[in-house]
Amino acid sequence: MTSMTTAKRVRLSPEARREQLLELGVEMLTTRTLDELSVESLAEQAGISRGLLFHYFRNKQEFHRAVVQRAADDLLATTAPDPSLEPIARLTRSLEHYVDYVRRNHRAYLSLVRGAASGDDSLREIFDRTRDVLTRRITDNMGVFGLTDGAAERLLARGWSAMVEEVVLAWVADPQISQQKLLAVLTQTLPAMLSVPGLAAAE
Amino acid sequence: MTSMTTAKRVRLSPEARREQLLELGVEMLTTRTLDELSVESLAEQAGISRGLLFHYFRNKQEFHRAVVQRAADDLLATTAPDPSLEPIARLTRSLEHYVDYVRRNHRAYLSLVRGAASGDDSLREIFDRTRDVLTRRITDNMGVFGLTDGAAERLLARGWSAMVEEVVLAWVADPQISQQKLLAVLTQTLPAMLSVPGLAAAE
Repeated sequence: MTSMTTAKRVRLSPEARREQLLELGVEMLTTRTLDELSVESLAEQAGISRGLLFHYFRNKQEFHRAVVQRAADDLLATTAPDPSLEPIARLTRSLEHYVDYVRRNHRAYLSLVRGAASGDDSLREIFDRTRDVLTRRITDNMGVFGLTDGAAERLLARGWSAMVEEVVLAWVADPQISQQKLLAVLTQTLPAMLSVPGLAAAE
Repeated sequence: MTSMTTAKRVRLSPEARREQLLELGVEMLTTRTLDELSVESLAEQAGISRGLLFHYFRNKQEFHRAVVQRAADDLLATTAPDPSLEPIARLTRSLEHYVDYVRRNHRAYLSLVRGAASGDDSLREIFDRTRDVLTRRITDNMGVFGLTDGAAERLLARGWSAMVEEVVLAWVADPQISQQKLLAVLTQTLPAMLSVPGLAAAE
C-alpha cells in the first residue's frame, strides 16, 4: 500500500495520473470482478476524489473499458514472441508467459474474457482485437509449420487460441498436471492440429 | 405465426403451456439476444397476459434461465452420439448436428455461450454443465483414440470443445470454407491433439 499512500501526497501530471489509475485498476482486478470495480473504490485507493477521477474517465463504463484495454495490452506485451528463439521454443516461451499472466491476473483476465461475452460491444471489441493479434502471431508464421496460410488454417489458429484460453483457465482453477507438462502439451497441439490431412484436401 | 394464433385460442394444461412458452422463448432467441427477450414480448407472442406468464416463471431471471436451459438441452439432444456408427463417423455426425444447431439457433447459442460469461452464476452453471456433458462424451471414450483417460487428456478434451465452439461461431459468421471441409478438419483435430507425445510423458 506504500505506493498508494505516496500517490496521495505527490502531485502527478495528468498523463502520469491517468497511467497510475489504469495500473491501479488492473491491480484491483486481481482480487475482484469488473462489476465489483467501482469508481468509488478506485478513487479511494488512489487517494483522489471521485470528482477528479471523472476528469480522467467520463463515466464508469469508460473507466472499465480503459482498464480492460490496459489488461489486454499487458497480456499482449507479456506474451510477445521472442524473435531470438527457434519457432517451437518461441511458442512455448509465449505460452509460459501467458500462463504466468493468467495465474497472476486471474480476475483481470476473466474480466477480459467475460467482457467478450457481455452485452457491452466495446468490451467485446477489445477482446476480439486481442484474440486477432494472438491469432495473427500464429497465422503470420504458418511457414514455420510447413503450411500455407489458408482460410481453414486461420480458423483453426483462432480455435487453438480459444482452446488454450479454456485449458489454462481450467488448469489454474485446478492444476492437476505440472506446468511443464501443460506447456509441452499445449505447444505440441498447435502443429498437430495444423497438420491434419483435411487441411490439405481440396475445398 | 399460425401456431401462435392457435395458442391464443386453445386452453392448454399448465405443463403444456410451460412447454409452449419455453419453445417459444428458444424460437424467439433465434432473432434476438437474451437481453432483448422480454417477458412482455413473450406474453404477447404466446397470446397470454404478463400476469399469467409470471404464474409459470417467478421473474424475468427465472424465465431466462429456463429458456437457456432448454436451449442447452436441445443442443445436447441434437448432438447425442449415435452408437450405431464407428467412432470417427460418430464424432463427425455429432459435429454435423452441432454445426446445424449453431446455424439455425445462432442467437440462442450465443446466449448460452455468453450466459457463461455473464455475471449470472446460474447461467454460467448451465453452460458449465453443458460443456461437461460434451467433454465427457469424449473422455468416456478415450479408448477409441488408443489413450488412457488422464488429467491432461481431460483438459485437452475440454479445450477441444472450446476450440470447436470458437471455430464454428467464426465459420457461421463468415463461412470461407465448405461445411464438409470444416467437419473433416474438426473431426481430425481431436485424435491429432490427443496423440501429442507430451501426453505420454511422465508427470
